Amino acid sequence: MNAPDLDRFAQLLASAREPFPASRKAYLAGSRADLRVPVRDITLTNGEVVSVYDTSGPYTDPAAQIDVRRGLDGVRSGWIAARGDTEGYEGRVRKALDDGQKAEDGDRLAQLREQAAALQRRPLRARAGANVTQMHYAKKGIVTPEMEYVALRENGRREWMAQYSQDAAREQRLAGNSLGASIPTIITPEFVRDEVARGRAIIPANINHPEVEPMAIGRNFKVKINANIGNSAVTSSIEEEVEKLVWAIRWGADNVMDLSTGKNIHTTRDWIIRNSPVPIGTVPIYQALEKVGGVAEDLTWEIFRDTLIEQAEQGVDYFTIHAGVRLGFIHLTAQRRTGIVSRGGSIMAKWCMAHHRESFLYTHFEDICDIMKSYDVSFSLGDGLRPGCASDANDEAQFAELHTLGELTKIAWKHDVQTMIEGPGHVPMHLIAANMAEQLKTCHEAPFYTLGPLTIDIAPGYDHIASAIGAAMIGWMGTAMLCYVTPKEHLGLPDRDDVKQGIIAYKIAAHAADVAKGHPGARARDDALSQARFDFRWQDQFNLGLDPETAQQYHDETLPKDSAKVAHFCSMCGPKFCSMKITQEVREFAAARGLDENQGLAAGMRAKADEFNRAGGDFYIPIAPAAS
Amino acid sequence: MNAPDLDRFAQLLASAREPFPASRKAYLAGSRADLRVPVRDITLTNGEVVSVYDTSGPYTDPAAQIDVRRGLDGVRSGWIAARGDTEGYEGRVRKALDDGQKAEDGDRLAQLREQAAALQRRPLRARAGANVTQMHYAKKGIVTPEMEYVALRENGRREWMAQYSQDAAREQRLAGNSLGASIPTIITPEFVRDEVARGRAIIPANINHPEVEPMAIGRNFKVKINANIGNSAVTSSIEEEVEKLVWAIRWGADNVMDLSTGKNIHTTRDWIIRNSPVPIGTVPIYQALEKVGGVAEDLTWEIFRDTLIEQAEQGVDYFTIHAGVRLGFIHLTAQRRTGIVSRGGSIMAKWCMAHHRESFLYTHFEDICDIMKSYDVSFSLGDGLRPGCASDANDEAQFAELHTLGELTKIAWKHDVQTMIEGPGHVPMHLIAANMAEQLKTCHEAPFYTLGPLTIDIAPGYDHIASAIGAAMIGWMGTAMLCYVTPKEHLGLPDRDDVKQGIIAYKIAAHAADVAKGHPGARARDDALSQARFDFRWQDQFNLGLDPETAQQYHDETLPKDSAKVAHFCSMCGPKFCSMKITQEVREFAAARGLDENQGLAAGMRAKADEFNRAGGDFYIPIAPAAS
Repeated sequence: MNAPDLDRFAQLLASAREPFPASRKAYLAGSRADLRVPVRDITLTNGEVVSVYDTSGPYTDPAAQIDVRRGLDGVRSGWIAARGDTEGYEGRVRKALDDGQKAEDGDRLAQLREQAAALQRRPLRARAGANVTQMHYAKKGIVTPEMEYVALRENGRREWMAQYSQDAAREQRLAGNSLGASIPTIITPEFVRDEVARGRAIIPANINHPEVEPMAIGRNFKVKINANIGNSAVTSSIEEEVEKLVWAIRWGADNVMDLSTGKNIHTTRDWIIRNSPVPIGTVPIYQALEKVGGVAEDLTWEIFRDTLIEQAEQGVDYFTIHAGVRLGFIHLTAQRRTGIVSRGGSIMAKWCMAHHRESFLYTHFEDICDIMKSYDVSFSLGDGLRPGCASDANDEAQFAELHTLGELTKIAWKHDVQTMIEGPGHVPMHLIAANMAEQLKTCHEAPFYTLGPLTIDIAPGYDHIASAIGAAMIGWMGTAMLCYVTPKEHLGLPDRDDVKQGIIAYKIAAHAADVAKGHPGARARDDALSQARFDFRWQDQFNLGLDPETAQQYHDETLPKDSAKVAHFCSMCGPKFCSMKITQEVREFAAARGLDENQGLAAGMRAKADEFNRAGGDFYIPIAPAAS
Repeated sequence: MNAPDLDRFAQLLASAREPFPASRKAYLAGSRADLRVPVRDITLTNGEVVSVYDTSGPYTDPAAQIDVRRGLDGVRSGWIAARGDTEGYEGRVRKALDDGQKAEDGDRLAQLREQAAALQRRPLRARAGANVTQMHYAKKGIVTPEMEYVALRENGRREWMAQYSQDAAREQRLAGNSLGASIPTIITPEFVRDEVARGRAIIPANINHPEVEPMAIGRNFKVKINANIGNSAVTSSIEEEVEKLVWAIRWGADNVMDLSTGKNIHTTRDWIIRNSPVPIGTVPIYQALEKVGGVAEDLTWEIFRDTLIEQAEQGVDYFTIHAGVRLGFIHLTAQRRTGIVSRGGSIMAKWCMAHHRESFLYTHFEDICDIMKSYDVSFSLGDGLRPGCASDANDEAQFAELHTLGELTKIAWKHDVQTMIEGPGHVPMHLIAANMAEQLKTCHEAPFYTLGPLTIDIAPGYDHIASAIGAAMIGWMGTAMLCYVTPKEHLGLPDRDDVKQGIIAYKIAAHAADVAKGHPGARARDDALSQARFDFRWQDQFNLGLDPETAQQYHDETLPKDSAKVAHFCSMCGPKFCSMKITQEVREFAAARGLDENQGLAAGMRAKADEFNRAGGDFYIPIAPAAS
């Protein structure tokens, strides 16, 4: 980057590094000194501390020294080295073509590459005969530091949550409905190991991405969200993409996919991975296509294989591979309203049709597994035949591919390669359950990772909302990770604000799913916020929300003064009509005549009501008993 | 209004009157010349005309002469007169107190009142002994023009929809799941009559609001949405509220509630009703409270009764009345996290506690029915004890009140007063179904009208999304009307843009529900849009969406040129990676080698696949059969 670029970038980055209001980065201590799990502690005005899951990495830690030209520290480096089953090696020789056929921006790219050289790590791979996947360790009964990290992270600080679950009757009334999930009260490292061994969860963590803060994707863990970033041939730059990454994890992206399809694709990825504390996924066929100048028919297994190794060495944590788009399925899409809407799926369909041969992703699937297990890259088996509109939902093409993904899952697991399954897409509400049921059955409970689904097609510009509805529902039903949709879906490449809007909509969907499933402690944050709302602790209400800034800004539009932050009303109802204020007056009134603490208050109010019911009744109107 | 106010208002109004792009207001002809049902016809670039339900009233009809100082024409005036069961009368004498105790803005208010005088209609009421409700007519077997209007409106132009449902296999696969609703393929006037007679639907249409374009709220009709407007003591003016009304119906509000709680409350309502083609609801206790200076304890039945008559004469179509907040239930809220969150509920709770008496809304319920049936004002039985946070959902207080509302429904029906039931509020996803089931059982299938529900509490600033999830679900399950929530919920009074955001989110929820229920023709608009998307008819894609302007704006941010409106890609993927473009290439490729039309295309592709499957197989890898 040249100087002005870096300045602009530094400025954007600085704004994304500011701690959230009243928040402090803290770490939960694990069983070893180098195992420190981040949380965000929010201090309320009443002294309470509410601690929440934190995806933002060292960026929100004022103590962390960040230099995007050097990359983040490798929190997992020691753990990987200690296992003694990897070796450093020279790695694949960098080719000019890695950044695509086009040589636009020659000088600038040269600069970026030069800078990126400082980001390079000497790649690791499994020693001959070794398998370095978390699933492999799990099946051997080994609890890795990554698994312990995940356990601590999923539990968070359970202490503060306890105060919100002391009312047994309430807890029983609100008990979630997990719809068949097996969520324990406390996540132990052993539980994590068992889930990974069974294939019900994955921990995407390439040995060449030691900077990653381990996280799990699985039905029995919190529902996660993925944000897609990446440039396209039409717009965006490397700096923008790195900044989008930091921005995305600030707002809560658990994973980020770099879907770049434009120029400088390799170099962009260097910058993203070295600066990412969250797992990074890619769709390697995109880069392979760039290498053949965009002509799908010119793709070969050799070019694809080389690209897999290139990206595995860089540290990509999971690959979307559309190996289920088989030649024999393509005709099933001919009657569709919108055909094939997956980029990868359409590329492979074109290749299959042009060569009249089975997809090389399918025929070489075991070769791909061999690469995956040498680096611990996880599969995200792509749904290349997902429906692109409501009227193509749940059709034969979609389910034929899903069955194939189930077969491939078994093969991947034979190699101990961690695997998740991608899902749609566009599905009306009443067909969502069938998707989840079919996936669970066909894919042997491998984690489901869905894009939305969008429940309707008539909301361009608002597809983050149309899809958040479907995402919340399928998350409740068992989907482990939700791929976000931004307001720009179907219309253009999302910018910084679109990324935020998409993430917030999906944090809502994921949290709604956690609450419905009854994930232990999930509701505590809601309770803390609701209590703050009832107590008119406005600042706490803002700070406990998903987006404190916007909440406060909306409030302050009409009542900007500091005094309004403790006022017993807002501009929505004004002072006379604030129901919460009136409720408090009712309680005070009752307390003055009854008993003075909460338990007694109800009794006091009930006594007064009973007294009334015994004495009065003369002004009741006769009510006919309800008939049904 | 003084001149500058009127100018500003005229300007805002003009922008809300512009026809939607490529859209033309048209009317479906009924059985009589004065029965013309509006639709919006969207002409696509391929010549197709897509016709959609239109709530915007005469404002989007360029032929309509609109003068907000005169009000709209009374489309129902002739029908009401022809029934011969009403009489004009002097009406209640206007009191200064009707605009509240505060005399702020004295001069300006005087001007507004003077202008409002031109809006006055001589009020109608039922002749002695008559009952003028749609339910009364329905029970007597009379199909009113209002019922015919509703039938035509619900059906829309079925002709254009037919082309999207010709594939029988597809229709069977996508057949909705109505979850127990009884939705006919064609809505007949007789069906509407029967639904109204049974109490399963209401047509809110006060005889003093002849300007209303009749619409139905019922489980077997399209899911409707309500937008709340209204000033508060803190902010907003009459002009803003009238403009919000026009703005709200432009974006699709089927109903509008005027929840003003500030000054000039009577005069504001004059302006709103006389200019509204959609039913207007209010919460009369708000105005009654204004008349007693905001002191709940000072409310009396007499003041309330007078307010009901005042508003019935003005033409309010439905009253929210919190008659289920009984003295004996208040103690049930003492253990709640957020107590009573309904304004009306908290006011009545305070009154009951202070006087230690049963609510006058409950004791005078039959007196209220007598007023309602003289004007055909519908009940919206308020859920004053709805939960204000997830952790208060489905508790004893909420359901005790719901049971009472069921009892009151029977009484209202005894008087042939149309009735719907308000519902929560804040409910996690897994508890939504229980709400719907309880309401259907307890309230004898009277239409349910819910606020959201919000599925989580941690999204201040985004509660339109957190609640659209719950709204879509409960809409699918049987809720007839969804009360919108704006991004400002819990934070402040919504402005113009918030109103739009809330409406779009709720149009999405309502439409998702219609599609899931399998409402006939609901999916056709999605199909038309998806087809436009696949055909790269960008302009049609925008114009078929809920918000054409925003969709186009998002698209044009990166590709503003006209040529991009027919380009076979957008900035999201760029030209090489557009899956729809590649799919078209695949189809062209197949067509060139197979057959050249769609039906044959699949056969051609299949033939090629079969040929391959017979010949090849040598590079297949062995796949183990899937075990489950």
